[in-house]
Amino acid sequence: MRPPAPVDPETLGRLAAVVGSENAITNPSEMQPYLNEPRERWVGKAAVVLRPKSVAEVSKILEIAHETRTHVVTQGGNTGLVGGQIPFESGNEVVLSLLRLNRIRQIDAIENTITVDAGATLKAVQDAAIGVNRLFPLSLGSEGSCTIGGNLATNAGGVGVLAYGTARALTLGLEVVLADGRLWNGLRGLRKDNTGYDLKDVFVGSEGTLGVITAAVLSLLPRPTDLATALVAVDRVESALEILHRAEAAGGGRVTALELLPRTGIDFILKHTSLRNPLAERSDWYLLIEISGFGEPGTLRPTLVNLLGEALEDQLIRDAVVASSEAQARELWEMREMLPLVQKAEGGSIKHDVSLPLPALQKFLDEASAAVQRLIPGARPVAFGHVGDGNIHFNISQPEGADKHAFLERWDEVSAAVFEIVLGLGGSISAEHGIGRLKRDLMPLIKSPVELALMKEIKRAFDPYNILNPGKLLPDEQ
Amino acid sequence: MRPPAPVDPETLGRLAAVVGSENAITNPSEMQPYLNEPRERWVGKAAVVLRPKSVAEVSKILEIAHETRTHVVTQGGNTGLVGGQIPFESGNEVVLSLLRLNRIRQIDAIENTITVDAGATLKAVQDAAIGVNRLFPLSLGSEGSCTIGGNLATNAGGVGVLAYGTARALTLGLEVVLADGRLWNGLRGLRKDNTGYDLKDVFVGSEGTLGVITAAVLSLLPRPTDLATALVAVDRVESALEILHRAEAAGGGRVTALELLPRTGIDFILKHTSLRNPLAERSDWYLLIEISGFGEPGTLRPTLVNLLGEALEDQLIRDAVVASSEAQARELWEMREMLPLVQKAEGGSIKHDVSLPLPALQKFLDEASAAVQRLIPGARPVAFGHVGDGNIHFNISQPEGADKHAFLERWDEVSAAVFEIVLGLGGSISAEHGIGRLKRDLMPLIKSPVELALMKEIKRAFDPYNILNPGKLLPDEQ
Repeated sequence: MRPPAPVDPETLGRLAAVVGSENAITNPSEMQPYLNEPRERWVGKAAVVLRPKSVAEVSKILEIAHETRTHVVTQGGNTGLVGGQIPFESGNEVVLSLLRLNRIRQIDAIENTITVDAGATLKAVQDAAIGVNRLFPLSLGSEGSCTIGGNLATNAGGVGVLAYGTARALTLGLEVVLADGRLWNGLRGLRKDNTGYDLKDVFVGSEGTLGVITAAVLSLLPRPTDLATALVAVDRVESALEILHRAEAAGGGRVTALELLPRTGIDFILKHTSLRNPLAERSDWYLLIEISGFGEPGTLRPTLVNLLGEALEDQLIRDAVVASSEAQARELWEMREMLPLVQKAEGGSIKHDVSLPLPALQKFLDEASAAVQRLIPGARPVAFGHVGDGNIHFNISQPEGADKHAFLERWDEVSAAVFEIVLGLGGSISAEHGIGRLKRDLMPLIKSPVELALMKEIKRAFDPYNILNPGKLLPDEQ
Repeated sequence: MRPPAPVDPETLGRLAAVVGSENAITNPSEMQPYLNEPRERWVGKAAVVLRPKSVAEVSKILEIAHETRTHVVTQGGNTGLVGGQIPFESGNEVVLSLLRLNRIRQIDAIENTITVDAGATLKAVQDAAIGVNRLFPLSLGSEGSCTIGGNLATNAGGVGVLAYGTARALTLGLEVVLADGRLWNGLRGLRKDNTGYDLKDVFVGSEGTLGVITAAVLSLLPRPTDLATALVAVDRVESALEILHRAEAAGGGRVTALELLPRTGIDFILKHTSLRNPLAERSDWYLLIEISGFGEPGTLRPTLVNLLGEALEDQLIRDAVVASSEAQARELWEMREMLPLVQKAEGGSIKHDVSLPLPALQKFLDEASAAVQRLIPGARPVAFGHVGDGNIHFNISQPEGADKHAFLERWDEVSAAVFEIVLGLGGSISAEHGIGRLKRDLMPLIKSPVELALMKEIKRAFDPYNILNPGKLLPDEQ
């Protein structure tokens, strides 16, 4: 893609006038937090970072951008992991930060809906729901800083998908500023509304390339009153699926999390944190399982104890501990949540966010681990994630004592080997992080020409001048 | 809309050659079942009814139609209630019946997916799921004859939406023949796959105007082993919502149905069927509530008995009966399912499929009933439906002894009054049946110019020659 022409001073002046000079950032050090992405793969540049405070200002900005063909990169909490939310290196794009649009507009515990600005953090939405004794079940590592707008633009997943679905499933209505500044008000909270094409789902997951989501109506759910949490040692990932089916069939509660942890990850945790492994048996794989229900607190624990006791008798699992207190449950979750951090302490990490058909999970783990270790002897796979959805974060820690930079230089080579196995097994190379910049050039590999053509038709229809996050998600035109 | 030009004999010959002459029906009496819609509002005409037996044949048909600008009306079980699936009266359109594409392609009880041809009936899919001890939860009155393709093209709802969502929520992947005959293979069963725009949801609910769905990958769920069913007499619909919240919070099972029945409907049932009302108390409204779970059969009944006992003490409800056998539960469901039939026995009926924000339901029922009776004194509202989703079938039976034809002549006038109230309360004039022909001209009333413009952009991008079900869903260009 040719870099865009520099934004001319007059256009910059018009854009700055919309938000006021204090919210049109051009000072390099103040711009910096908007230009770096969390994994430090790229550092972008921008002509200006605009921080509108209202939907009307967003609308005016896009009207000017449309007229002047100015490229706009929309950003929420800047926590995305595929480089979708930061500009390229030309310095000729505009970053549109929605962090100042952060109101909870409305919450209704009878209708079970919440209407929020795009810049509200996920945590703020979760907390508002708790305030009316409801659950907003989207939950992910960056929830304190990621925004709802970003969650919807990337169709975020996280740990609650198994029971509650991705961000898409929790979205009832949207408000979107279109590429030319027009406003689409689709802020509906109705559960059933079959009146024409489903525009909402076109914008969800479109990574800022089709419009700027400024607000959403989200579903709330009843808030569980009872939880039971266990850590389980298993030999094979297939056991996770059998346990999931048994737990679903056992009744009394829903399986609201089923996370996979690898032996390597547990070892890293024992080395770098004060957490202890509550299980005596050493095992290749561990599962974190959570069951939720609405009975008296403590009701579900015996259900889970029985379920795992039977699984132990059947030699389906090697060992298990069911948390006997909230504090212990919290500790089990900490092991899961610490995984990215302890991996960092072990040096460089090459990361993959893939999903597989459930029956192919173990085969993938075996084959991909072997392939990576053939390429880089001593490389240490740390495969963890949302096994109930088939979503594995297949991360590779560098060999002990190896050079971090030299290891990371081999990212694309390692990824190519991993993705080949994923695709051969009918999986996806982006389960929940999206395409962004990182995987854009892989799109022709994973999508048929027909599918890419349909996507480009939609892009052309919604953003004819290609000003919205160009060069992200869709591969370049040949 | 100008009617299309007649299909020339050469094109007809080419189309017939694709499917063979025995599956290119032109004989008027054989065509008839494909041209009448269930409510007998319209009778269409067609140049030919084509019955392809393979996706390749569908593809070839659309290639020819695209080239020759021939209008194609795709049809499944012909059970749609808004005239979307039958041709107009010109006789210059082609009906594409998918009834011969009816294989269950694959079923996987580990992945919990089923892959089916579009022409498979909903019942066939439900039965295939039961065959592997799974649940396909979409359920509606016409399930014996409606097809999955039609269910997806209209985003069908039905009685299971409260717990399991509409057809959209149950769809993981699609295979679609595009307007020009190209095939999009999006038959994926992955739970998480964030790789580009969500094409699947563009086709779901597009009523045959953007492509021809030929197959789908659908979600299966664990099959409940225990059900408890009750009929409850209440004074106000608000009680339904309070009971729903109490049942959700009670735990032990999920509320898998919450259906509203009106006094008038029960009276009609007592008059026209052998069913008896098991409740002694007369009441304005009745609720059919079903709770499902995975425990031993019979476990949930006491839960429901306790819940309703407390509701009775709190004067939230007037009376209740909890089915003590499967046969009695079946009888309660029959009362609900008989409603459309007994209404027919009472003469003409003007029907509306609307949804309301839950807090506005009672207000809608009060105001719409009064408005209708002001227009037509003696008219008898029979409002029933999926109250847990806010979806009411607001049907009006003719006054006793009135002229059926004269009553039905006032359909549009009555609908206008009902819709004005629906829209004033933030509801939808089509909750689950879709737009089709019946509500097409209302689209400018319910959609902003921006929203209509976006829909038309999508239509132009996917079907540039406007050959797919033209004149349905979208209003005419001015």
